Amino acid sequence: MLPIHLPIRVYIEDTDAGGIVYYVNYLKYMERARTEYLRACGQEQSDTLAQDTAYVVHGVEAKYLSPARLDDMLEVTCEIVKLRAASVTFEQEVRAAGTGEVHCRAQVRVVCVSPSEMKPKAFPEGTFSHLRR
Amino acid sequence: MLPIHLPIRVYIEDTDAGGIVYYVNYLKYMERARTEYLRACGQEQSDTLAQDTAYVVHGVEAKYLSPARLDDMLEVTCEIVKLRAASVTFEQEVRAAGTGEVHCRAQVRVVCVSPSEMKPKAFPEGTFSHLRR
Amino acid sequence: MLPIHLPIRVYIEDTDAGGIVYYVNYLKYMERARTEYLRACGQEQSDTLAQDTAYVVHGVEAKYLSPARLDDMLEVTCEIVKLRAASVTFEQEVRAAGTGEVHCRAQVRVVCVSPSEMKPKAFPEGTFSHLRR
Amino acid sequence: MLPIHLPIRVYIEDTDAGGIVYYVNYLKYMERARTEYLRACGQEQSDTLAQDTAYVVHGVEAKYLSPARLDDMLEVTCEIVKLRAASVTFEQEVRAAGTGEVHCRAQVRVVCVSPSEMKPKAFPEGTFSHLRR
Repeated sequence: MLPIHLPIRVYIEDTDAGGIVYYVNYLKYMERARTEYLRACGQEQSDTLAQDTAYVVHGVEAKYLSPARLDDMLEVTCEIVKLRAASVTFEQEVRAAGTGEVHCRAQVRVVCVSPSEMKPKAFPEGTFSHLRR
Repeated sequence: MLPIHLPIRVYIEDTDAGGIVYYVNYLKYMERARTEYLRACGQEQSDTLAQDTAYVVHGVEAKYLSPARLDDMLEVTCEIVKLRAASVTFEQEVRAAGTGEVHCRAQVRVVCVSPSEMKPKAFPEGTFSHLRR
Repeated sequence: MLPIHLPIRVYIEDTDAGGIVYYVNYLKYMERARTEYLRACGQEQSDTLAQDTAYVVHGVEAKYLSPARLDDMLEVTCEIVKLRAASVTFEQEVRAAGTGEVHCRAQVRVVCVSPSEMKPKAFPEGTFSHLRR
Repeated sequence: MLPIHLPIRVYIEDTDAGGIVYYVNYLKYMERARTEYLRACGQEQSDTLAQDTAYVVHGVEAKYLSPARLDDMLEVTCEIVKLRAASVTFEQEVRAAGTGEVHCRAQVRVVCVSPSEMKPKAFPEGTFSHLRR
C-alpha cells in the first residue's frame, strides 16, 4: 500500500500557453498523492476536519527539472523523510510513467493543527504507526 | 456603482496548451464580477456565510464566441435580468477591454440558500433594493 | 469502451470555502471524460493539435442539482446526442459513484476547428465511426 | 513603477474546504506580480514567446505563515535578489493589504530559455537595465 505511486493523466486544464504543464499544478498532483498516502493510513481529510484536525502545508521546496505535456501519463511518489509529533516532511516526485524521467521534485512540510485553536496538535493516534515501530 | 464593468488581466494561469484562455476560466471571471456586484450591494460572501446564507449557482448557459489570449485586458459585465425572492439570473459578458469584442456571454442563475437546512431562503432584506422600487 | 464512465476522486484543490466542490470544476471533470472518450476513439489532443485540428467548446448548458464534497468518489459520463460533420454535442453527468445521485448535468457543444485558419473543419476521418454506421 | 505592489482580491475560486486560500494559489498570485514586474520592464510574455524566449520557473522555496480568507484584500510584492545573464531570483510576499501581515513568503528562481532549443539564453537586452547600472 505504501509508498504511494499515484498515476495521473495530464489534461488540458493542467497546461498553459507555453504548451506544458503549468508549473503550479505539480503541487496539486503532489497533494493528491499525499491525500492517498493519508487515506492508506486510514485518514480521510473530511473525517479529520470534523475532529478539529487539519493538515496544513507550512513549507515547500520544489525543483522543476523538465516539462510534462498534454496527454502524458505521470506517476507521483510520496515518501516520509522526517516525522515529528505534530509535523511531517514528505519527499515527492512527479515522474513520466514510462521512462521515470523526473519533472518535479519537492519537499513538503505539513503541520497538524487544530483549526478552532489555530495551533499545532499531535497527529491522531496511530496515523503513521507503520513508521514508528 | 452598478452595473459592474470589472477589468481583468489574462495571466499565464488562465491559459491552456491551445494558447488561449481555458474556456472554463471565463466562468471564474464572471463569478468575480458577480461578487463585486454583490459587494456593491453591501453583501460580502464571508459575512453572508456567517449568517447561514449562501449564493449557489443552479444553472449556467454559456456561449463562446472568440478566444481571449495571454496578456489581454478584459472587462466583465454583470446585469440582473430576472429577480425573484430567492433567486436571481445574471446576464454577463467577457469582452476585450479595447474593442468590446465579446469572448463569452452567459446567463447564470443563482439561488439563495440556507447551508444548514439545505433549502432556498429569501435574499437578505434590501439586497437588490435598487432593482425593487 | 464506450460510453465512458470515468471515476474521479474529489481532492481539496476541487473544493471551495462553502465546503463543497467549486461549481466551475464540474466542467473540468466533464472535459476529462470527453478527453477519454476521444482517446477511446483513437484521438489524442496532442496529436490532433499537431495536425492543425482543435476541439473548441462553443456552448455549455449546465444544471447543478446537488453538491459533491471532499473525498467523494464520482463518476463522469459522456454520451454523444448530436453529431454533425464539424460539431458534436455531448450529454454529460457527474454522479456520486455509489448512489448514482446526479450532482451536475450538462450539454456541451464542441466544434472541430483549424487553429491556423480559425474556421470549422470536418472531424478527422473515422473519428466517430462507431456512431456513423 | 518598481518595486511592484500588486493588489489582489481573494475570490471564492481561490479558497478551499478549509475556509482559507488554497495554499497553491499564493504561487499564482506571485506569478501575477512577476508578470506585472516584467511588464513594467517592457516585457510582455505574449511578445517574448513570439521571439522564442520563455521565462521558466526552475525552483520555488515557499513558507506559509498565516492563512488569508475569502474577500481579503492582499498585496503581492516582487523584488529581485539575484540577477545573472540567463536567470533571476525573485523574493516575494503575499501580505494582508491593511495590516501588512505576511501570509506567504517565497523565493522563485526563473530561467530565460529558448523553447525551440530547450536551453538557457540571455535575457532580452535591456530587460533589467534598472538593476544593471
